[in-house]
Amino acid sequence: MQREDEGEVAVIFVSRRNGEDAAGYDAAAAAMDALAAAQPGYRGVDSVRDGDGVGITISYWADTVSAQAWRDHPEHVTIRERGRACWYDWYRVTVATTTRAYAWTRP
Amino acid sequence: MQREDEGEVAVIFVSRRNGEDAAGYDAAAAAMDALAAAQPGYRGVDSVRDGDGVGITISYWADTVSAQAWRDHPEHVTIRERGRACWYDWYRVTVATTTRAYAWTRP
Repeated sequence: MQREDEGEVAVIFVSRRNGEDAAGYDAAAAAMDALAAAQPGYRGVDSVRDGDGVGITISYWADTVSAQAWRDHPEHVTIRERGRACWYDWYRVTVATTTRAYAWTRP
Repeated sequence: MQREDEGEVAVIFVSRRNGEDAAGYDAAAAAMDALAAAQPGYRGVDSVRDGDGVGITISYWADTVSAQAWRDHPEHVTIRERGRACWYDWYRVTVATTTRAYAWTRP
């Protein structure tokens, strides 16, 4: 997605799926994508997963308040617990504040 | 990779490959990975590309000075020009300062 604003909060989630429960994971991921997009301060997401199950998802938020509200959203908390129980070998989360952004598209 | 430090600079590169010149791209990407890792202030990289050619690469740097030095490294500048000429449909770059990081691994 395209963003114009700086001073946003980027929540970087790097993970490896264990390959179990693909249907359950896919359904939960779609539900979380939709729920996140409906939250105040949501600015977009970039998400990629490769064939080895390693993925990077970055969600962008207007500010720290909206990013933390999403972190603390009850459905999001529940799904993270399910992620640790069922879906991931490991994950890392990095929270960062954007300072600069630019884009290029082939003319 | 695992990082302990906050206040680092994360350079988020989201792109779509056009599928052309895979061998040239792969060789250049490996060379850039090695060159980046040898630069002062390099703290690591996360990189994933999916089957549709969309990728996210995040390089982490000790500070703004080291991130900008890598941006301005002559070989990196040259390879970016080649990327625009040959390899990418589009890309977006977001620079951010990390504020918090944590990790989980299945026990």
